[in-house]
Amino acid sequence: MAHLVGNLLVAQSGGPTVVINASIAGVITEAGKHEFIEEMYGGMNGILGILNEELIDLQDEKAKAIEGLRYTPAAALGTCRYKIDFKKNPEQAGKDMDRLFEIFKAHNIRYFFYAGGNDSQDTAHKIHEQAQARGWEMRVIGVPKTIDNDLPHTDHCPGYGSVVKYNAATVMEVAFDVSSMATDDGSCCLVEVMGRAAGWIAAGTVLAKRSENDAPHIILLPEIPVNEEAFLNKVKATVDQLGYCVVVVGEGVKNEQGDELGADKSRLDAFGHAVLSGAAEALKELIQGKLDLKTRTVKLGYAQRAAAHYGSKLDADEAFACGEAAVRAAIDGKSGFMVKLVRTSRDPYRFDTGLQPLGDIANVEHVVPRDWISEDGFMPNDKFVQYARPLIAGENPVPHEDGLPKFVVLDKNLVEKQLPPRE
Amino acid sequence: MAHLVGNLLVAQSGGPTVVINASIAGVITEAGKHEFIEEMYGGMNGILGILNEELIDLQDEKAKAIEGLRYTPAAALGTCRYKIDFKKNPEQAGKDMDRLFEIFKAHNIRYFFYAGGNDSQDTAHKIHEQAQARGWEMRVIGVPKTIDNDLPHTDHCPGYGSVVKYNAATVMEVAFDVSSMATDDGSCCLVEVMGRAAGWIAAGTVLAKRSENDAPHIILLPEIPVNEEAFLNKVKATVDQLGYCVVVVGEGVKNEQGDELGADKSRLDAFGHAVLSGAAEALKELIQGKLDLKTRTVKLGYAQRAAAHYGSKLDADEAFACGEAAVRAAIDGKSGFMVKLVRTSRDPYRFDTGLQPLGDIANVEHVVPRDWISEDGFMPNDKFVQYARPLIAGENPVPHEDGLPKFVVLDKNLVEKQLPPRE
Repeated sequence: MAHLVGNLLVAQSGGPTVVINASIAGVITEAGKHEFIEEMYGGMNGILGILNEELIDLQDEKAKAIEGLRYTPAAALGTCRYKIDFKKNPEQAGKDMDRLFEIFKAHNIRYFFYAGGNDSQDTAHKIHEQAQARGWEMRVIGVPKTIDNDLPHTDHCPGYGSVVKYNAATVMEVAFDVSSMATDDGSCCLVEVMGRAAGWIAAGTVLAKRSENDAPHIILLPEIPVNEEAFLNKVKATVDQLGYCVVVVGEGVKNEQGDELGADKSRLDAFGHAVLSGAAEALKELIQGKLDLKTRTVKLGYAQRAAAHYGSKLDADEAFACGEAAVRAAIDGKSGFMVKLVRTSRDPYRFDTGLQPLGDIANVEHVVPRDWISEDGFMPNDKFVQYARPLIAGENPVPHEDGLPKFVVLDKNLVEKQLPPRE
Repeated sequence: MAHLVGNLLVAQSGGPTVVINASIAGVITEAGKHEFIEEMYGGMNGILGILNEELIDLQDEKAKAIEGLRYTPAAALGTCRYKIDFKKNPEQAGKDMDRLFEIFKAHNIRYFFYAGGNDSQDTAHKIHEQAQARGWEMRVIGVPKTIDNDLPHTDHCPGYGSVVKYNAATVMEVAFDVSSMATDDGSCCLVEVMGRAAGWIAAGTVLAKRSENDAPHIILLPEIPVNEEAFLNKVKATVDQLGYCVVVVGEGVKNEQGDELGADKSRLDAFGHAVLSGAAEALKELIQGKLDLKTRTVKLGYAQRAAAHYGSKLDADEAFACGEAAVRAAIDGKSGFMVKLVRTSRDPYRFDTGLQPLGDIANVEHVVPRDWISEDGFMPNDKFVQYARPLIAGENPVPHEDGLPKFVVLDKNLVEKQLPPRE
């Protein structure tokens, strides 16, 4: 097989993670070994920046900076939520595709890598199909990324191990705090974590439990509707037994009517907008109102998906490996695939990378299986623990300066534009 | 001077910190060197447990566990907010004091160490005075502790450096996240941190700024009333310039009428209670309502004062040193003092411990000086940075097991009770 000679473009999309940059480092490192990949470009802010022909020269970055991507959180190239949507807006989508391929051709892009979640893999899939339809020889490979862990076909997603490690440590620490104050204070603490549809992130905090009575005592998953009475009984029983109770709440938890607890639209603020303080605040009101129990909340928000000071070493290694594997697949002539992680051994844990057709990924939601959750719905069981435990192994080291992490920021030197501005 | 022979009692009080256990380790380690200190007891849950004669035998703990207190968050002995209040309830306070001295005598307590904040130092002071009045020879030394950093006379408080380190790293990481999403998402993020009256914790996040445009872009301190218009103008100007804005909010920030933003009692929940989601949520509504800007919140809550996975090494060392110094002072015949930290050199940073009469501590509130804050009130200035920067030096190491911290839990073997139960 003759090697496809040309340039490489890599971009990032969707909500950032602690290790999405490690994947980019993997792409760059592997591509650097192959001389028929001539130029390496980064697309700024995902597909949106590419449409604006905002490409940066990755070979112009310091080698140190590329290395630093292994521990730098968020999307070093910038990201977006922009969607090329043929269903909702076929005219705009068609224009966008035309524009994208003008840019690919103008810059002789023959290798395209897109790191992201469900929507981003869908975009990559469409670009792959369009490349074939338009007769532009280009290899398109998706790199998996999402803290939500909701991509199908891959054992888990890069980004997931790190958010679980940080959140589980936080729950453990909060529990030490609350339990030591429980005598005449404290009592209940609700920790709200991300996850609107899938409860993988919330479920992961079960790893903080080393024994029966350890926190978290209750985990509320979006997959299991909250029965108010059963929940309050469980909180009360826990406080009666231990003096305190730590509850982890996935932000998307729903009541039995299917409404999100954090989206009660009945309360309006001064501007007439619904007060959406979130699920934990709603449950705090419930607990204080019904049980008269002192209750506090923690809402980790963006902090949890950016906590590179405490990332999983395995997660960073796997993210890097996914980037490398994407390049190797493209060099092998593959296109239209997403790299996936395959668990080749459970104990000791070992992984390999594989490939899955991009068409299998889009619009498939991967949620926590019901038989990985206790009968009462309040706690993931041993099947889940066996699955998740290995993913938080090791601490990904971060260099420090003056007592704080020293992350890298790319120089982002723009490649000269070849086309008129986007309309 | 003849050495005072007898037993030691140490206890913890008030809100826990990452390093209050390190102070206890310092007390135990130093006391172990002096044979005229015979038995070493820990009072469970502060003064409240002592009143119940719940004393544990510290010499019965594993040496490894005592060592582990150097990196274990929260209060290993338990804590309380119970106050012996001669003003509000003189009858109960008198009874409590009688009971305390019965217990001290029954267990021959001659050395008493109390680690805590303002209220706890006040309690220690009263016990010191009562010991003198009652003719019970006992040395009483307070050990400083508070993330709030609001104790007077000490350069800073053990616990403060660690909360600042964790919060500043978090703000830095959140800023990486928000800025990488700013193109068509993100925009404003509010991070709420602790500090009801004093803004030391919020101010400390300024250390995340390595250059002019770095986050945090605005820090709201409880000391400076929020001018709504000036605040919104600053948010808008920052977003116009950088595409995003990260705001740190001390939980106790007030409006110009002196009311806490987080305590707007006009909104009621389903139980008729005021909705107190906090200052960040209130400001989020304001920003979304007035600027139509996508805004998200992070509320670190208890997580920040328990984040031992990322504690300051210097902070732990200083906390340990304070515990040692307390014992040495008592052995030197001192009583009625609090250990304080003294900065003996600014660059390089060096500290020593000193002593301050307990009577100087109680009811004195130490807030951020106005001339350590920028003229517009939105940012601590270089004077503050020079003060705070050294306090976050180094990462306090924590052993891990299965990817998560391995903290210690004391065995807590109770000493045999000598007295009838408390009435």
